[in-house]
Amino acid sequence: MRIDFPFAAKLLAEHQRIQILCHRSPDGDTLGCAYALCRALQNMGKQAKISVDDVIPHSFDYMDDNIEIQEFEPDFIVAVDVANFDLLGSESYRENFRDKVDLCIDHHATNTDFAKYTLLESEPEAAAAAETVLLVLYEMGAEVDAGVAECIYTGLSTDTGCFRYSNTTSRTLRMAADMVDKDIPFEMVNKRMFETRTKTYNALETLVLSSMEMHFDGRCAMLSITQDMYRQSGSDESEAHPLKAIPRQIEGVLAGITVKEDADGSFRASVRTNAPLDASAICARFGGGGHKRAAGCSLPGKTLREAQDNILESVRLALEEL
Amino acid sequence: MRIDFPFAAKLLAEHQRIQILCHRSPDGDTLGCAYALCRALQNMGKQAKISVDDVIPHSFDYMDDNIEIQEFEPDFIVAVDVANFDLLGSESYRENFRDKVDLCIDHHATNTDFAKYTLLESEPEAAAAAETVLLVLYEMGAEVDAGVAECIYTGLSTDTGCFRYSNTTSRTLRMAADMVDKDIPFEMVNKRMFETRTKTYNALETLVLSSMEMHFDGRCAMLSITQDMYRQSGSDESEAHPLKAIPRQIEGVLAGITVKEDADGSFRASVRTNAPLDASAICARFGGGGHKRAAGCSLPGKTLREAQDNILESVRLALEEL
Repeated sequence: MRIDFPFAAKLLAEHQRIQILCHRSPDGDTLGCAYALCRALQNMGKQAKISVDDVIPHSFDYMDDNIEIQEFEPDFIVAVDVANFDLLGSESYRENFRDKVDLCIDHHATNTDFAKYTLLESEPEAAAAAETVLLVLYEMGAEVDAGVAECIYTGLSTDTGCFRYSNTTSRTLRMAADMVDKDIPFEMVNKRMFETRTKTYNALETLVLSSMEMHFDGRCAMLSITQDMYRQSGSDESEAHPLKAIPRQIEGVLAGITVKEDADGSFRASVRTNAPLDASAICARFGGGGHKRAAGCSLPGKTLREAQDNILESVRLALEEL
Repeated sequence: MRIDFPFAAKLLAEHQRIQILCHRSPDGDTLGCAYALCRALQNMGKQAKISVDDVIPHSFDYMDDNIEIQEFEPDFIVAVDVANFDLLGSESYRENFRDKVDLCIDHHATNTDFAKYTLLESEPEAAAAAETVLLVLYEMGAEVDAGVAECIYTGLSTDTGCFRYSNTTSRTLRMAADMVDKDIPFEMVNKRMFETRTKTYNALETLVLSSMEMHFDGRCAMLSITQDMYRQSGSDESEAHPLKAIPRQIEGVLAGITVKEDADGSFRASVRTNAPLDASAICARFGGGGHKRAAGCSLPGKTLREAQDNILESVRLALEEL
């Protein structure tokens, strides 16, 4: 059931032991929402904790200082930035939450209403779910201190490529200004999200860039990231995220594809597009989803080449439909 | 003589034929200021033109649509984002303007007061000179239409690395929000400033990255860009700008140096630092200047190695002084 801000605020206000769920492959928006909400609830004297069924990249460590670790049986479960039930995590993990998620606060137009109540501001209303969470906190009269502000800023900055992407609105920028006014170390956040190059990242980038393929008259660029590249560079998946932005940045490219090999030998695609190509449509053919300009999916295929050919075929169809 | 906003606005208001000067190696801030001011003045029925003693990178072409080309003898000359007289251009060019610059609108703490009147908001007051120019336009009651807003946004975004760097303030973000509210194509601006990769840029990047040297226990990273690299990659200097950001991004680096060979075989350094290292102090040893976190200078030395060793020695001294 879709609800409005006052109702969402009331639900959170009337519960005392709140568990917050993020999506798998957690990014700065789902984590920023979770940490901001957790801190704000703890500041109000409630018990709150965050659950993620995945490794949290080290770059987000700074948010740990904003919350206390609390253990309890929840009386209310809220998912943040989670578009569908499967994104919560592995099959065994997510079964713990089947029909048990009370509230979902999200900004994906593709949200499946898997929670009992859903507060949705879909793009272009909210560039980041952190915008919607911030408005819930304001609605609750919760204190937005520097700790909360740092986490909200992380969400805003992550989902807009630091206010670069077309999903950024003047509301996003004004919310960022309000967070910066709390004296948060925003330059540290942005350095961690977008700028820090480790030696292992540099080595990984060199390997990954050499995998670049151009297709369909330069309208599609594809990078591939394999387990072997992680081994050769001494890097790991947690450092691969910034590479996904590169293919779409090439002049004339409409579809920027990154095919990633998981540790179990299966393959996933990250799809970034330029207008008018729809990334979520390309991924929907394989049961994936996301936004118009950024989406993801698992890929069929036993070899890297098979997986690459599968996603390329979906890109080809999408380009033909233009 | 230092002046305030009302005085600067009055000077511009009472003149009719205004020439606007940018600094050499023009970037998005000096050009954004010039185009914004030129359009606003033309909108007010005045004559206005921009002079730059350098090639303007193609990435800024979009701003040309915002102004009309007008030829006239100026009755007032204003320099924007220009810290000292030498930055105006070559010796023969700048001699045309000796003792003739009426007003300088700038945000460099190192401004030498070379103009008759100087309106200075030095960092951290103004992250970009475009902030100061926008406030002058507001003070004049000038119309900030979408054309003006696009140019001001270009300045704001350029000098803050798209709102990433520590010089960004909540004022910068709110001004950006106000410009976005004018329905400007800000994502196009940011793509051109930060994201577009041409094939020749990719080739240049690969060559330049292979020149990376680490010095002083990893506290200094140095890239070099030679004329030979431009020839090999089919690229040119206008594409080199984004590379200068890379050395500082490496983990643990305080001084990120890029040594560039000019067409005449001379060398220049771009210096980017992380706190607490002062980039302008490193460049001051060679008569250069800039900001605390980003500065530049010409380098003595007949060979690349000599030029590199000269700037490294200045970095070594600065690191010792910490």
